[in-house]
Amino acid sequence: MVAATKNITTAACLIIGDEVLNGKIKDTNSAYFAKFCFDHGITVKHIAVVPDEESDIVETIQRMASRYDFIVTSGGIGPTHDDITYESLAKAFGLPVALDEELKERMYTLGKRRIDPANHEAVAAQLRMAIIPSGPNVETIYIDPAGLWVPVVAIDAKVHILPGVPQLFQRMLDGLVPTLSARFPQTDALLERFYVATRLRESEMAPYLTRLQHEVDPLGIKIGSYPHMSIGVNTVSIIGKVAHKDKLREIVKDVEANLQGHEVSKEEEEKQSST
Amino acid sequence: MVAATKNITTAACLIIGDEVLNGKIKDTNSAYFAKFCFDHGITVKHIAVVPDEESDIVETIQRMASRYDFIVTSGGIGPTHDDITYESLAKAFGLPVALDEELKERMYTLGKRRIDPANHEAVAAQLRMAIIPSGPNVETIYIDPAGLWVPVVAIDAKVHILPGVPQLFQRMLDGLVPTLSARFPQTDALLERFYVATRLRESEMAPYLTRLQHEVDPLGIKIGSYPHMSIGVNTVSIIGKVAHKDKLREIVKDVEANLQGHEVSKEEEEKQSST
Repeated sequence: MVAATKNITTAACLIIGDEVLNGKIKDTNSAYFAKFCFDHGITVKHIAVVPDEESDIVETIQRMASRYDFIVTSGGIGPTHDDITYESLAKAFGLPVALDEELKERMYTLGKRRIDPANHEAVAAQLRMAIIPSGPNVETIYIDPAGLWVPVVAIDAKVHILPGVPQLFQRMLDGLVPTLSARFPQTDALLERFYVATRLRESEMAPYLTRLQHEVDPLGIKIGSYPHMSIGVNTVSIIGKVAHKDKLREIVKDVEANLQGHEVSKEEEEKQSST
Repeated sequence: MVAATKNITTAACLIIGDEVLNGKIKDTNSAYFAKFCFDHGITVKHIAVVPDEESDIVETIQRMASRYDFIVTSGGIGPTHDDITYESLAKAFGLPVALDEELKERMYTLGKRRIDPANHEAVAAQLRMAIIPSGPNVETIYIDPAGLWVPVVAIDAKVHILPGVPQLFQRMLDGLVPTLSARFPQTDALLERFYVATRLRESEMAPYLTRLQHEVDPLGIKIGSYPHMSIGVNTVSIIGKVAHKDKLREIVKDVEANLQGHEVSKEEEEKQSST
């Protein structure tokens, strides 16, 4: 039905919602998306948070869609006045919106409690959630057809519209894997990361790390360096393809030897990581 | 020294770092910035996370600087190869970079442990942290001159370059208040928010909330609606200027009456809020 089946190597995430920008709510969806993509070998190139304003949504999604292979949006698909994601994305891609009959049926069948039919305005508000972008390049992906009526609406097999509620966002993102995995990087292109902790200062590490990065550039391996101020330790990260695992292990040994460091597990390192 | 002293009403935040995009690190700085701005009556319009790549940094900061009054960047000002924020921002604003002698002196005086002078490469790496954008529209703001050698480098009295380490980011952002507060909104323009919790469904609330938003639009009051799926409750937020406090309190009563709800404290509501 949808033409585009381009392989997915790059990704971006668009968080839509005043509540994140005014500090009411901490966005956790973009971090979940970042981990999801890493685990599937996809490189996230951009995350943006925009208000519930059409012009901001339209401009940002158009820019993302022109550059990256896989984009998710989070938020703005409820029934209230500040939920304008479907209309805004339709506008961004020059599409009409229309009531989707299948979606409406699912909403009525699987929705937990029926709105009082005499409450016409509430019924109309609820139906807004079934008025979605429409056209041959739009798909509705039901990730759990028996239990969840909200679909992932996908445009151009590229932009995927997800809810902002974290439980739903996570469940629906994970639920996209069967649909998308054929376009994900192959197993030997998946990424692996290693960490080496050291008490050397970043300035002391820098010359060696610069040379190392230069040396491993051709293999697409990335060397990073992150201070943990509170515990006086710096961590070097080494990220590369699973296919280069032996080389990555060699680099870990080399970093340990050159920086008087020792390897730490992913769990240990990520426990104390926030920026 | 710096010409621009435009009042600050809008803001944006640029997080620079592969480590956020690849899921190693959870960005907490943008959420801290969002709360900071709310507390000072400033509206955050955009948050972006970009990789350690010059073209992404340049393009995003130029867009932000052309639109918003107050911008902070986070990350990329250390001594290692992946720290390219100063050079990239200089490029974005057509400025040279140069070794700042005062900054170098402070680094040497206040830095915790001197790099071995015989280690020329490490000394050079450390000095990279004192090579900053240069010109009449660049300021170095020392927020804690006796205890911290890292300055906030400000360009055009608009873009403020902060470190990514959260302890430093927070301290330095808070430390900017004395320098910037004269440009912040006045006391009666500060924002206040109230919350009303209800068990009504969002579809049932929507018609009333739409009318309410329309009615309070002229006062710049914003009505939001946020589901807490796990506890089956929806929260309405009412945000407006302190100067409109009586009106805001009136709206809270109105929302309670119309949505069978009850007011909840900010603490209560924000405890269970993440998206």
